[in-house]
Amino acid sequence: MANTSATQEVADYLLASKRCEILGLDHLLHMGRLVAAVSDLVHALQQERGLSNLHVASRGERAGERLARRVEETRDREQAFRERLAELDTQRLCSPGFVRLFARIAYALHGLDELRAVRREIRGLKLSPEAIIEGYSELVRGLLAVVFEAADAAADPDISRVLVAMFHLMQGKELAGQERAVGAAGFARGGFDEPLSGRLQQLIDHQERCFQIFMEFADSRSLDAWRGAISREAMTTLERFRRIAFASVQEGQAEQSLCDDWFELTTARINAIKEVEDRLEVALTELCARKLEDARADLDKHRIELDTLVEQPGPGSFAIFYDPPADAPPVEETYDAGCASPRLGRSLIDLVQSQSLRLHEMGEQLREAQAALEERKSIEKAKGLIMTHRDMTEDEAYRFMRKLAMTQNKKLVDVARATIDLADMFKGVGR
Amino acid sequence: MANTSATQEVADYLLASKRCEILGLDHLLHMGRLVAAVSDLVHALQQERGLSNLHVASRGERAGERLARRVEETRDREQAFRERLAELDTQRLCSPGFVRLFARIAYALHGLDELRAVRREIRGLKLSPEAIIEGYSELVRGLLAVVFEAADAAADPDISRVLVAMFHLMQGKELAGQERAVGAAGFARGGFDEPLSGRLQQLIDHQERCFQIFMEFADSRSLDAWRGAISREAMTTLERFRRIAFASVQEGQAEQSLCDDWFELTTARINAIKEVEDRLEVALTELCARKLEDARADLDKHRIELDTLVEQPGPGSFAIFYDPPADAPPVEETYDAGCASPRLGRSLIDLVQSQSLRLHEMGEQLREAQAALEERKSIEKAKGLIMTHRDMTEDEAYRFMRKLAMTQNKKLVDVARATIDLADMFKGVGR
Repeated sequence: MANTSATQEVADYLLASKRCEILGLDHLLHMGRLVAAVSDLVHALQQERGLSNLHVASRGERAGERLARRVEETRDREQAFRERLAELDTQRLCSPGFVRLFARIAYALHGLDELRAVRREIRGLKLSPEAIIEGYSELVRGLLAVVFEAADAAADPDISRVLVAMFHLMQGKELAGQERAVGAAGFARGGFDEPLSGRLQQLIDHQERCFQIFMEFADSRSLDAWRGAISREAMTTLERFRRIAFASVQEGQAEQSLCDDWFELTTARINAIKEVEDRLEVALTELCARKLEDARADLDKHRIELDTLVEQPGPGSFAIFYDPPADAPPVEETYDAGCASPRLGRSLIDLVQSQSLRLHEMGEQLREAQAALEERKSIEKAKGLIMTHRDMTEDEAYRFMRKLAMTQNKKLVDVARATIDLADMFKGVGR
Repeated sequence: MANTSATQEVADYLLASKRCEILGLDHLLHMGRLVAAVSDLVHALQQERGLSNLHVASRGERAGERLARRVEETRDREQAFRERLAELDTQRLCSPGFVRLFARIAYALHGLDELRAVRREIRGLKLSPEAIIEGYSELVRGLLAVVFEAADAAADPDISRVLVAMFHLMQGKELAGQERAVGAAGFARGGFDEPLSGRLQQLIDHQERCFQIFMEFADSRSLDAWRGAISREAMTTLERFRRIAFASVQEGQAEQSLCDDWFELTTARINAIKEVEDRLEVALTELCARKLEDARADLDKHRIELDTLVEQPGPGSFAIFYDPPADAPPVEETYDAGCASPRLGRSLIDLVQSQSLRLHEMGEQLREAQAALEERKSIEKAKGLIMTHRDMTEDEAYRFMRKLAMTQNKKLVDVARATIDLADMFKGVGR
């Protein structure tokens, strides 16, 4: 009897392990919905940013009505985002990834709270276009950070892959939006100077890295959607506009009339990227639902198997660990006469081993998917170092690095890595 | 009012983030107690293994009474281990690390369940000494795997460091126990052959790597305990015995009378290591308790700060993200007349930023501590590959690798890495 109850304990822990996994997958299903809401909200904010900018730059003469309508739509998206948030069970979740996730959500919510006052100031034409762009961009950055933490905290490698693809697609789209703004500014003033063309180049490079990572991790149907969405003709036209922009630095001017075409072209591109996001979102939801179903079926199967095993306990033996030496009698013969076969032990071991082997493989695959997030983590770390050493805010530190990258004609991540190496070196000197 | 309630939401997520951290630390405090119970249980099992071996090898003539007493003590330790387990809240915990942890606990519990039948067989002299050693060692390996997962799942870098030190100290002690058995076998039969001396060399190398990692991660007081426990004289004597063992391969013999001295010397060493474990355990408990206290004080502080801030809300602004261009009026002047200073926004941002910066630094330090666990993970992965490709059980695969390492005179981890590289290469060919 004591033996049976002890074996029950083994079964309980195996089932607890499986239930843990299910709870994690259920959480990912909710996170998937939250990410979809973030995707919609970011898209609305990106459009509101463009219209606000136009409205303020024209001293209130243009886009007033469209802006008012857009603000209503953004509010709906914000409402949907808050509803998805309310579904997350903050009491049940407790792991390092979620600690960061909640801090990111707090930061994003704070940005949304501030938006109300900012909109009043925009209506009163009290903010500069630069302040508007920086402000909305920071809010978008805060929302993307929520997606980043969701990707980083995901425990399932397949779902993690889709979330990594999603984060980089959203990040690339935001950079495409910033490229639209920088390009529009350059064409509007009839040409690009060195700083503006430098910023443009940086946005193009960073975008391409993001889309590469997206392509590396996306499922095949989302990849098809990506290839279908961005036609070769549209890309050729975009490249031609970019070439004109860079050429204008030497030539001293670009046709101002190109501004509207540029805006239209890049807007169509951004909307096409949003459609790929939606497609990826469907893939994410389907994947989460399928995984959850599989895990639940697995749990039921385990439960039945374990019930059968626990009902027919036989005293176990170390036989399973034991290669008999050549001169020893076969292990089976050494059993007490009253003993059943070591079926229970064997089956439990099989269950535990297949469970732990699977978990181990998942861990490996997970690390591979998460390696794609390392680049961003380097940037975050360097930012932290700069914040500490130069007593800057997060945003100041980010812009400091961006400026360094631009003047040194380097990638942001290379500047970040150099910063970290330097700090490590000095730490060594200080010892 | 709407603004206040929205700000309340920001505060809620910040507090949820902090509560998450506290729940994690509280769990680590429990895990610390569980690890202490594992340390005691493993020590008892190691002694029971030695006495069982002696009892069976002497055909029941020696150590019968001492073994019976030792079994009682092991049962007490097992009971304590099960009580600590019962304190773990399997319902509250849900993260990838815990999925593995629970599977490991199930495996260890199953091994303990089997122990009852094994003891009957030992009393009936029905198991060979080799089977006894392999069986107990597998059980100890299962228990150490619980400590490994605890170290791997710990979210606090300082606590993770102590757990990494603890795992490697316990692992080193187990290897010292195996060295005792191998040495005793060699001296008892009057000399070491090639396989036995090869195994001895491997155990010495592996032990040293474990103790190096322990020294790298242990706190200073545990290091003092380590230096005090293993006196220079004892180490010199141990090295002399080891030299005699290796020399006997060429010379063909070693004094049989050395066997008892060897056993006494290595037993004293193992007991000394256990004392260091106990010291490290105290450090772990103190650290967990202190961290938990700090985090709770932090939560209270945050709560008061946030209450004050939420009670005096002022509409925020993007000013904090915004470097005014040189020709723009100071930002403050652009505020609506009725607005308070952006103190709320500023303070919330400070809170969120300090929280997220701290979490980021913790993540970095955590990865450093966990890198020490990578070696073992490589071995686990290689084992999994061998299990799949050669259709072996976990234990067979482990012994297969160990044999490979011995015949090729390589470290186990090098064999593991070579196995993984080979598998990756073949995967490439198959594409």
